[in-house]
Amino acid sequence: MTPKNPDYEKTIRKKLEKQFFMHHIGFDLTKITPGYVEGELFLEEKHQQQFSYTHGGVIATVADLVMGFAAYSLVESHQGTVTSDLKIAYLRPGIGDKIIGRGSVIKSGNLLHFCEADVVCINSNGEETLIARGYATMCVVKAHI
Amino acid sequence: MTPKNPDYEKTIRKKLEKQFFMHHIGFDLTKITPGYVEGELFLEEKHQQQFSYTHGGVIATVADLVMGFAAYSLVESHQGTVTSDLKIAYLRPGIGDKIIGRGSVIKSGNLLHFCEADVVCINSNGEETLIARGYATMCVVKAHI
Amino acid sequence: MTPKNPDYEKTIRKKLEKQFFMHHIGFDLTKITPGYVEGELFLEEKHQQQFSYTHGGVIATVADLVMGFAAYSLVESHQGTVTSDLKIAYLRPGIGDKIIGRGSVIKSGNLLHFCEADVVCINSNGEETLIARGYATMCVVKAHI
Amino acid sequence: MTPKNPDYEKTIRKKLEKQFFMHHIGFDLTKITPGYVEGELFLEEKHQQQFSYTHGGVIATVADLVMGFAAYSLVESHQGTVTSDLKIAYLRPGIGDKIIGRGSVIKSGNLLHFCEADVVCINSNGEETLIARGYATMCVVKAHI
Repeated sequence: MTPKNPDYEKTIRKKLEKQFFMHHIGFDLTKITPGYVEGELFLEEKHQQQFSYTHGGVIATVADLVMGFAAYSLVESHQGTVTSDLKIAYLRPGIGDKIIGRGSVIKSGNLLHFCEADVVCINSNGEETLIARGYATMCVVKAHI
Repeated sequence: MTPKNPDYEKTIRKKLEKQFFMHHIGFDLTKITPGYVEGELFLEEKHQQQFSYTHGGVIATVADLVMGFAAYSLVESHQGTVTSDLKIAYLRPGIGDKIIGRGSVIKSGNLLHFCEADVVCINSNGEETLIARGYATMCVVKAHI
Repeated sequence: MTPKNPDYEKTIRKKLEKQFFMHHIGFDLTKITPGYVEGELFLEEKHQQQFSYTHGGVIATVADLVMGFAAYSLVESHQGTVTSDLKIAYLRPGIGDKIIGRGSVIKSGNLLHFCEADVVCINSNGEETLIARGYATMCVVKAHI
Repeated sequence: MTPKNPDYEKTIRKKLEKQFFMHHIGFDLTKITPGYVEGELFLEEKHQQQFSYTHGGVIATVADLVMGFAAYSLVESHQGTVTSDLKIAYLRPGIGDKIIGRGSVIKSGNLLHFCEADVVCINSNGEETLIARGYATMCVVKAHI
């Protein structure tokens, strides 16, 4: 996909500074390309729910972040995106050392970007398991809102 | 709705101790009744995304928590619930002093509980605004998993 | 809700003439008000799936129609709406004499209308059962597309 | 994926006889393999909505059918599946000669099968366009219900 803003990566990196909740959960982006973004998070006790699995809210946040920034990489420099609709299918328990989120724009548009995400867990042997799929509609907005 | 576990509130309160991610974001339950649960979170900078709004991941987590525990209040004492499918419709920006989540079971079953949630923001005048709707399918599982 | 097009009902009634699939399944609108629309369908064998229940596709179509026209009632005369995202929660089997769909706009906007729907079955005693809930995002477009 | 019922294809073919709504819209399965099913429908005026596009309800029905039977191919001979949750992302207008639906089980389980579908349109040159993505949770039930 062709970015409308050639400085898309720089623009996104600057936005990340004020992504306080992203920092609060310990997630960071590791790859930013037009329409595809990856990021990761090292699992700690603070990410768990009552069964010692990764909380569904962590997984939803990771999916939202990688899909949102995948959409962000495609808009004009004066535009941004907001999530209008997010869905997560929880396939398997989130257990392991690390979570990786991979977000793609599957159909870009002037108003809406349709996105999908894989959320995987990496265990201590480096093996990965798909734990969730994310689906989102990202709406293009003026960036300064 | 009639709870199958008369000690449902005590059971849930005990589960909350190990809800590390819930504590990490500063959310707590304020009302637990059969099939309906409320909770709240005071908004701080750590909950924000790049536009200074509440991050969509916070809202998804709040919705997941209140719907999950609404379903939990209806299962047998040896059972628990896990989220199989979560969807959030983001209606308005999350701005204000406090977020309240209200989760209801709209159809209970032996295997699945269908749930809905309102997520509202409370401003400094105590006025509330509906910022998101949550929809989830909660799957009944053995509690010890 | 206040309609932007005072002739919203007339505009929608005219659109219905070319709603070939709606006619093909035997559905019709019975109530059109700003942001809220109702319609019904008498159940026949042709609506069934292999268990003799109403097919999920019929229910999805009914939900889409009443939410779509609820959104349509709120747009300018030169605009229309298309469904960007549709979700159905199937709560109970669809059995009975008639299906009624009730679609509401829960948040209207310039670009997107967030909608919800109840789909109910009416049995031979006139009693109604909620069989599904529908949730949709309707996107505002130029009407002539 | 390994089918639990070696006669899965025969079982599904028999079920299709009573799929009255599937026949009513003119859809039929063209490929049945364990966890993956394809089917097609030739587009006629009866499938259209007011903009002369394929109605969203047709697309939802096609997605539901191919995901439902993909799940059906994996259950025991005394079991069936029902849709608990269906979501459709409408990516592009449905225009062309034919619609093909391709449904896959992305995670199979004893109680739930998570599925995804591509719905594509084929034009008169045989070129295909992805018009929608479907996502569903299929719940395993006793077959005789």
